[in-house]
Amino acid sequence: MDLFEKLQDRPSPLGEFTSEGYGYYTYPKLEGPLGPVMKFNDKDVIVWSINDYLGVGNKEEVLKYDAEAAAKYGFSAPMGARLMTGNSDQHEALEKELADFVHKPSALLLNYGYQGIMSVIHALVDRNDFLIYDELSHACIVDGKQLAMADKSVFKHNDIESFEKQLERAHRNKKPNSSILVVTEGAFGMTGDLGILKEIIALKEKYPFRLLVDDAHGVGTMGKDGSGTGTHLGCQDGIDIYFGTFAKAFALIGAFVATEERVVEFLKANTRSQIFAKSVPMPIVESARKRLKLIQDHPEWREQLWENTNKLRQGLIDMGYNVLPAECPVTPVLTEGSTELCQLIMRKLREEHGVFVSGVAYPVVPKGTVLIRLIPTASHTDEHIEKTLKGFEAIKDVVFASASEKKKMTA
Amino acid sequence: MDLFEKLQDRPSPLGEFTSEGYGYYTYPKLEGPLGPVMKFNDKDVIVWSINDYLGVGNKEEVLKYDAEAAAKYGFSAPMGARLMTGNSDQHEALEKELADFVHKPSALLLNYGYQGIMSVIHALVDRNDFLIYDELSHACIVDGKQLAMADKSVFKHNDIESFEKQLERAHRNKKPNSSILVVTEGAFGMTGDLGILKEIIALKEKYPFRLLVDDAHGVGTMGKDGSGTGTHLGCQDGIDIYFGTFAKAFALIGAFVATEERVVEFLKANTRSQIFAKSVPMPIVESARKRLKLIQDHPEWREQLWENTNKLRQGLIDMGYNVLPAECPVTPVLTEGSTELCQLIMRKLREEHGVFVSGVAYPVVPKGTVLIRLIPTASHTDEHIEKTLKGFEAIKDVVFASASEKKKMTA
Repeated sequence: MDLFEKLQDRPSPLGEFTSEGYGYYTYPKLEGPLGPVMKFNDKDVIVWSINDYLGVGNKEEVLKYDAEAAAKYGFSAPMGARLMTGNSDQHEALEKELADFVHKPSALLLNYGYQGIMSVIHALVDRNDFLIYDELSHACIVDGKQLAMADKSVFKHNDIESFEKQLERAHRNKKPNSSILVVTEGAFGMTGDLGILKEIIALKEKYPFRLLVDDAHGVGTMGKDGSGTGTHLGCQDGIDIYFGTFAKAFALIGAFVATEERVVEFLKANTRSQIFAKSVPMPIVESARKRLKLIQDHPEWREQLWENTNKLRQGLIDMGYNVLPAECPVTPVLTEGSTELCQLIMRKLREEHGVFVSGVAYPVVPKGTVLIRLIPTASHTDEHIEKTLKGFEAIKDVVFASASEKKKMTA
Repeated sequence: MDLFEKLQDRPSPLGEFTSEGYGYYTYPKLEGPLGPVMKFNDKDVIVWSINDYLGVGNKEEVLKYDAEAAAKYGFSAPMGARLMTGNSDQHEALEKELADFVHKPSALLLNYGYQGIMSVIHALVDRNDFLIYDELSHACIVDGKQLAMADKSVFKHNDIESFEKQLERAHRNKKPNSSILVVTEGAFGMTGDLGILKEIIALKEKYPFRLLVDDAHGVGTMGKDGSGTGTHLGCQDGIDIYFGTFAKAFALIGAFVATEERVVEFLKANTRSQIFAKSVPMPIVESARKRLKLIQDHPEWREQLWENTNKLRQGLIDMGYNVLPAECPVTPVLTEGSTELCQLIMRKLREEHGVFVSGVAYPVVPKGTVLIRLIPTASHTDEHIEKTLKGFEAIKDVVFASASEKKKMTA
């Protein structure tokens, strides 16, 4: 049959959300300067949906620096892939600074996080190897896994027994030239819990393997010095390959992996999306260096982030909301209900209370549940938090009525 | 065995090039303002390795506009994936302008070309479908193919008989719910020849399928209005999904696909690297709009590009060099020889003649051959071309001696 006709009927991984509400539930436009308060449909809303955790993206100093870097270089240079013609002293300097930041010997800059980690995973393992990953891994890890030639197995989210079972299976089946790569996340972006890194690393002694950790949500926000979830948990040394993105706390594009020098050398010649695609533009590189320095110089931004996170969470919990026990700033509120309830919550908060949140329903979360995810940042003020909590107080009846209705129906 | 120890011995797809010469043969640094003359190891060189075909990247007007866009928005906004919080009027306006430019009803902006087309291919086909692609397709198409669940088959580069054979096979094996997607390129970046689009499209009548064309090297450079290889060949209508990148003639990052509205709608909800990764930063979007307008408004840049291309080629041919019959500006010079000869050519041209070219040897090209690829741009002057031809004249003995040596040995 005709491909285009067929596409019209193919279900989306996002379910019913995409069939309606373009511009509202999907592809909304948040306008005006980036920050905790932005315009949505011409009205001010307090925004809890953007990962500018430290408020770096709206700092005057950053905006000024961005403008200067663009004036100096434009957006075109360097042209070409890093390997061919896209290298510069600045790219290399940023790599050194990133390696130092996350306490690793060496780092490789990646032109985009998604294709970067995907190609890194693809490059690292061959058909004799074993790749074991957490079931809640981000889409980019899943795509990287899909590309990899290795034997692949998944363990239940943060379940050490399930992990050990897969590890044991790999060791049982391995050939002399087999290696094992384990992939998980530092902080999980939907559920807000941390990867059980220490428990995973402890199993290295029994069953040797190498560990790659995607710390997209942890880099900049976790650990006293912002160097991520490994530092926070006291096991950064056990992470063999550390992946961080600029898309969250750096409020930029691009990413990096930090690891041993010999692995960086290998990746420089083998990471397909890097050797066959354009290098990070110069002003982005310069801006990343600036932002990294600010993130390192301002631990008080992290403290503010955590203060705001704790206030918001406590307020929601006190009202009776089911806030998942998140250990990173991501604040997920879980309730029972349908896609309609999810949309109703988003609509009521936006229209009646000037509060912008994002929610997901089936198939992103199990059928019959709704997840409202709030992202506190260091830029939010007490007033923003109080106004938001008032909004959640006001919609409580609707949210809880649906949940108790559901309980009755299934009783 | 330990993964990291194993990586040290794993061969690279780039072969011997990466084992030595970092910073020279690989990861060289071209410094100073982007343009036809840049600094390499502190010396001026005429650069024939960057895809800024129209010279857009070093236009004063563009640099000024980039600085203004960065000053207005910074690099952070919008945060988040387009689907979640990363949409804007500007993103949508650019899409409309791009669709108009390439004569298609609708377009979808992609945050990076590599992951963009990869995920588009991944999204379009399911396990009942057939995916048929040219063997010289770019790495991003190969990765997209790898991710796709469809039955995959490859046809010999630009070989219509080989293509028809694969197409016939797909039709013979298809089920009622099977669709066929064909992927090829408009202009091939290494060999410089065009995809045989008209011949491919002509087979639609006999064996219906949909055609996706990666026109990375053709967008902006091919066709009277710059709208690409389909326009140049008079068959743009037969291209069902047109892919263009900003990484070449736009001298920027980002990319787009242009197709029917219903397909764009589908892709908006199903392209994984787009729904799960950050949107194109606002100043990049604004700069893309500006560059698009310049590309449309200045057909004389394309004329200059072709004039330079023809001069350079004719000069090389007159000297006896084997210039592949390229139909886009990419100018590949093929000779017989080893990796050592390839490096010698690059080194001699750089050090003795101030001419910077890139070359590839086995395994990128067949064993015993060396491909020197020159990328003319509209910014090159007659003086640059003459000086370059002098350089090639001077190294002729070395190049041809190796080839005739080889002939003797195999005779």
